Formats: sequence, structure tokens, C-alpha cells
Amino acid sequence: GGEEKTAAAQTDSGQKYKNLLITCENGLRTITLNRPEKKNAITKEMYEEWIESLKEAAEDPGTVITAITGSGDYYCSGNDLSNFANIDPSKMHESSKEAGVLLNRFVSAFIDFPKPLVAVVNGHAIGVCVTVMALFDAVYASDMATFHTPFSALGQSPEGCSTYTFPKIMGPAKANEMLLFNKKITAQQACDVGLVAEVIPANSFQQKIWPKLQAHAKLPVKSLVYSKALTRDMEKDILHKVNDAECDRLVERWTSEDCINAIVNFFNRKK
Amino acid sequence: GGEEKTAAAQTDSGQKYKNLLITCENGLRTITLNRPEKKNAITKEMYEEWIESLKEAAEDPGTVITAITGSGDYYCSGNDLSNFANIDPSKMHESSKEAGVLLNRFVSAFIDFPKPLVAVVNGHAIGVCVTVMALFDAVYASDMATFHTPFSALGQSPEGCSTYTFPKIMGPAKANEMLLFNKKITAQQACDVGLVAEVIPANSFQQKIWPKLQAHAKLPVKSLVYSKALTRDMEKDILHKVNDAECDRLVERWTSEDCINAIVNFFNRKK
Amino acid sequence: GGEEKTAAAQTDSGQKYKNLLITCENGLRTITLNRPEKKNAITKEMYEEWIESLKEAAEDPGTVITAITGSGDYYCSGNDLSNFANIDPSKMHESSKEAGVLLNRFVSAFIDFPKPLVAVVNGHAIGVCVTVMALFDAVYASDMATFHTPFSALGQSPEGCSTYTFPKIMGPAKANEMLLFNKKITAQQACDVGLVAEVIPANSFQQKIWPKLQAHAKLPVKSLVYSKALTRDMEKDILHKVNDAECDRLVERWTSEDCINAIVNFFNRKK
Repeated sequence: GGEEKTAAAQTDSGQKYKNLLITCENGLRTITLNRPEKKNAITKEMYEEWIESLKEAAEDPGTVITAITGSGDYYCSGNDLSNFANIDPSKMHESSKEAGVLLNRFVSAFIDFPKPLVAVVNGHAIGVCVTVMALFDAVYASDMATFHTPFSALGQSPEGCSTYTFPKIMGPAKANEMLLFNKKITAQQACDVGLVAEVIPANSFQQKIWPKLQAHAKLPVKSLVYSKALTRDMEKDILHKVNDAECDRLVERWTSEDCINAIVNFFNRKK
Repeated sequence: GGEEKTAAAQTDSGQKYKNLLITCENGLRTITLNRPEKKNAITKEMYEEWIESLKEAAEDPGTVITAITGSGDYYCSGNDLSNFANIDPSKMHESSKEAGVLLNRFVSAFIDFPKPLVAVVNGHAIGVCVTVMALFDAVYASDMATFHTPFSALGQSPEGCSTYTFPKIMGPAKANEMLLFNKKITAQQACDVGLVAEVIPANSFQQKIWPKLQAHAKLPVKSLVYSKALTRDMEKDILHKVNDAECDRLVERWTSEDCINAIVNFFNRKK
Repeated sequence: GGEEKTAAAQTDSGQKYKNLLITCENGLRTITLNRPEKKNAITKEMYEEWIESLKEAAEDPGTVITAITGSGDYYCSGNDLSNFANIDPSKMHESSKEAGVLLNRFVSAFIDFPKPLVAVVNGHAIGVCVTVMALFDAVYASDMATFHTPFSALGQSPEGCSTYTFPKIMGPAKANEMLLFNKKITAQQACDVGLVAEVIPANSFQQKIWPKLQAHAKLPVKSLVYSKALTRDMEKDILHKVNDAECDRLVERWTSEDCINAIVNFFNRKK
């Protein structure tokens, strides 16, 4: 977005966020995941910042549309597995519970976000950033993007309300190929199943997406907010229940042999 | 439909409806929106007639399949904005409430319609005639048809249960491009997302669609009616709740500055 | 699947099942519908065997993935209409009620199956084997397969929870073309609407599908089972309610003139 400037909100939060870059202009707020050297993997600190940045967007009267995007080649590579690395084995169950509470708060921030939220998927997307995408109001993807949710391969289980939203959006057969059987899909496949609204060629992605969102940000904000509420309010209770059930299951999974072995293998492969 | 004749039911209702043309033969009832000079825009009188014509179809033992279509180039251009034009400013809130009650009754007529209901989308479709389409049991479209729901552009919000049915059918990303961001889609795009069952070339649309529906009208009516009830009954309560919430919101929106300014601009552009 | 051997479970059940062939190796259990001379049409005995084989798969600790497929050119041609043929007219209502109870137990066996269940659709599929497919976790189809649910043409009504699952997966317009209007669709069309996850050319179907499922069967079983539970548990109550309503309706339909005439015509055409 060459045309964008860093507005007051961003100047204030320049020091506030270590892992995010925020801009806000003419009603369009952009939250850029900014850990490109780590493929925008989400550390605990970054989960907290992402939650805070959504709160800030919700409360700012000048924000109409909020867009999430990534810097570098990845949109986001999901939960940073180093979150698992430094855990004192004697405190594994306690750490797992804390991680479950953090994940629950993170997903709730998407369920409850009151304004139009748009994913600008500039590149590869893995794990929780894919699953929460179904809680966004619009998703635009570069044709170089891929979508991957390898939960069972890591001894884990799906989150982000995807066990509810994915079968609803794409039917159980295609949802479970992703959620149970670790299938990675392309941007075009994600568009065909309804997870993505539109695929844009990578070489014109940045030039095309921002003017589109700038135009959306000029629409009457009340019509947008009230219309979103109509699409979401009937479903909020069930989404929170699904989020709770998914997080409870992950707290169990994270301390399971299946998961521990998979994480150990992951780090051994990287050595 | 050159083969169709105007049956007794139509003769009776020939004077009854000013804006609709009704035919009924061999189980197939056709309700044609017949204000082509106004692109079949729906006036208050026409809402009442459409509701009455559905009641008549439901109660007629000779009606198996009911088809809705438009005369001229448009299927229907939605709410006639002249409905807004002649309102005494001192009675704006009262008029808005009355319009909300009428809309609620109109949408309820689709939710509760007990027999197979088919949309024969001969051309462009705008607004409420698009949103209630997801309450039909089948939708066939000419390849010249388009589907447009420009609610937020007019300071309004979606109706026809579309805030529930559209995300369910096409996923939130594609639903919100239409419902929040005013995207107009083609017949083929509407078919790809599941709003339309089949697209037929415009030059053979009339020749192909009517024999198909005539064949459907020969199926055992009880199997059709009972099967439709199975697909619909579990969902009726939620559809009525969604309809209520959408109409309440529109009653507020219609008297908002957002909407009033948009309507004024619309009429200024036409001058 | 040339690589497969008949494991202990199958040897035990070799005499147990007259209409099914069971193999189980390295976590992958295959249940083959084995009445190819009758296009794998389901007799009352075969319904009971299919229910029993699912119970066996659920309880076997060595079974991770369970696949259903057909022998010969058909996957399954649905309810064997000879089930209707030998009914004492004086006991028609009693027989109909018994058939309703059997169908309810059959569909419940799919709703409640706790492990990943995969349909390997080798050829044509008709009736109840199509409708319950939406209760599977993944569906792979040969490009020679077709999907047909001619309920109203036979004076009947849909089962297998399809009145709930089909509109949810593909939207009402396309669902009702199948469920109300007897439309037969191809494997590719079934994939486009989300009933099928992937279509594989017939000449490589067997070679490609089994190694894929063998790989899935090596995934951590707890992650698979718990993940499936998350996708299914919220919906189980409503699925059982839908199953009850559909079976109640069929008990009425099976003794109706519409159905009796259709069955008589079917057998007259075969003579």
C-alpha cells in the first residue's frame, strides 16, 4: 500500500506493538503481522498484541474497515512452535492451561469484533490464522497463497471455530480433508469452497486490494456495523461454545504423547 | 411460455391484481411480475398483491409448483424507491414502522409457503427479490441475469433472511461481498455459490424452463409438499426471528440520515 | 486394493456377513458392499449387517479409518425394492413401521459413528446410500460415479438426514433439484457442490485411493477421533431429530397410494 500514511493511531502505537505495524487512514485500518523473518509465526506476545490491536480498532471511532495482512512472503505461519519449547516439564499441564486461555481470548476477539474485518492474504497461511479466517467478513487472497491446517499430523486438533465454520462453509467432505487429513489447498481451491471471496494475481495484488478496501471504508459505517451484527449475532453463542470445546480439547492434546512426539520430531528435523 | 393458457384461477384474478399476471395449468402456477416499464419495482400495492397471490397459490388444490418470473428485461428491481418519496416528513417514523410491518409480512409469506416455489430469473434482480430467493426451493436463471443487493450504498441493511441464508449458502466471505459491500454478481457466479441451481442461455431460456417445470408439476404433490416441509420446518423459527431482527433494523435505517441522503441523491441523479 | 490382506477381524466375520466383505490392515478397515449381481441394493438383512459392521469397526481398537465401497460397477443402488414385494397387504402398516425402525437405526449408526468414515464411491449411487454420504467425514468418487435420489418419483421422501445436510452443504436450490425433483448428478457436479471431496479418474481410482487412505490410517487416532467429535457433537441432537422426522414421514409414504403405484409400475416395467 504505497498510498498509505501512518496516521496518529499508528504513531501512538508505534512503540506499543513489537510484532505488528498499524496504519489508519480515511476509515481503513491495516494491521500488518510484522515478523517476516519468522514467517509471521505467532508468539505469546504477538497473540496479546493482536488481541489488543483488535480492541483498539473496535474502539476507534475513525475506523470503518479493519484489514489484517502479513509482511514478507507469508501471511502467517500459525502458532510459533517455540511456544512449546521453553516449558518446564514439571509445569507442562499448567502451561497448557494458560495457553488454552490465551487461545480462547484470541479467538473470542474475532467472534466479538463488531466492525467489518477483512483478511488480505498476501501469501502462505498455516494453522490458527487459517481457521479464524472463517470469522472474518471478507477474505481476499493472492494467487500465491496457500491454506494449510496440519493439526492431526502434529497430534493436535482444530481451533478458531473451524470445526463449526468449515463444515458449514464447504461441507464435511472438503472441511475434513483440511481439518482431519492435513490437506493443503491453493488460493483458488479456497475460493471455490467459499473460504476466500476473490483470488487476485500476486503481481497486482497490492495495487488492486487497497483501493478496493479504501472504497469500502467510505460506506456508511452504521449500515456496515448493523449489517454485520445481523449476520453474526444469532450465531455468537454457538461460536463461543465451539471455541470453548476446541480450546479444552487442545489443552488435553498439548500434553499428549502424540503432540509431544510430533513437536520433538519437528525440532529435530530443523536441526 | 407460449404454450400456457390462462386458466380459471387467472380469469378470476384478472381484475384482482394490477401488477401481477397469473396463469395456472396442469399443476403449474406462474406469477409474473408485470410492471415492466418500472423494471418490476415493487410498490406497496404490489407487495400486497404478491402476498395475496402466494396465499392463493398455497390454498388452490390444483397448484403443485408455483413459479415467479418477471415480464420485460428485468426479473425485479426490488423495493420501488418511490415508496420513500411521498412520505409526509412529520409522519416519517410512523411510515417507516408501517413499511417494516409490510416487509415482515412479505418475507413471512415466503418462509411459510408450503409448496415448491421456483424463481424463474429472466433478467436483472435487485434488492429484496434477490434476498428472498434463498427462501425459494429452486432458482433457474438466464445467463443475462444479474444479482445485486446494494444495501449499505443506500444507507440500509439486508432483509429477506439473507443475513442468515446467504452466509449459510455461500460462506461469509462471498455473502458479505454482496450484503455489506454491494457487489453485483452474474448468473454464473450466483450458480457457483449455490444461490442458483442452473444457468440457461437467454436465447433458449423460455423454451427450456417451462417444459421442465411442467414436468415437475406432474410429480406426486404430497411427496413434494411433505419433502419440502422436512427441509424447512426445523428452520422456520429461526427464519422468523431473523426476519424480525432485519425488519426492526430497517425501520431504524429508513429514518436515518445515511438512508435519507442516499435516497435524495438517487432522485437527484435521475433528474 | 491388491495390497490388502484379510485380517483376523475379517476371518471371524467371513461367515458372519453374507452381503459384506470386510478387511482390516494397519488401521484401515474396508467394508465392501458385496451383492454386485443386484447392484449392491440393500435388503433388510444387508441393513442389519451394515449396522453390525459399523459397530464392529467402532469397537475394534485396531481400526483408525473405516472405508465403505462397493463391488462391481455400482457403489450401491439404495433400498432393494424387493423389500416392498413380499409384504402381506393386511400387514402393510405394521411392515412399514418395522421398516421405519430399521431405517432409523441404520441412519443413527452413521450419525453416531465415532471414527473417521470415508466413502469410496466406485460407481453409481442411488437413494439412501447417497443421502447418508453427507454423514461421512470424507467422500472420494470415481469420475464414472453418479448420484441419484429419486424420492418423489417413487412417491416417497428423503432420508439419511439429507433434508438437513444437503441444503446446508449445497444450498436449497441445488439440494432440492436432487431431493424434490429427482435430478441425477455426476461425480464432478457432486464435487462442485461439496458432497464429494475429490474426483479421481476411473482407470486410476483403485490405485490412487487406497494408498491415500492407508496414509491417513497412520495419523494419531486420538487426534482424528477427538477432531471428528468436535465437528459432530454440536450437531448430533438435531441430526437425530431430523432422522426421526424423516423416518416418520416415510412410514406414512410407504403405505400411500403414490408409493404403492410407483412400486407396482417399477416391477411391471422390469417384467
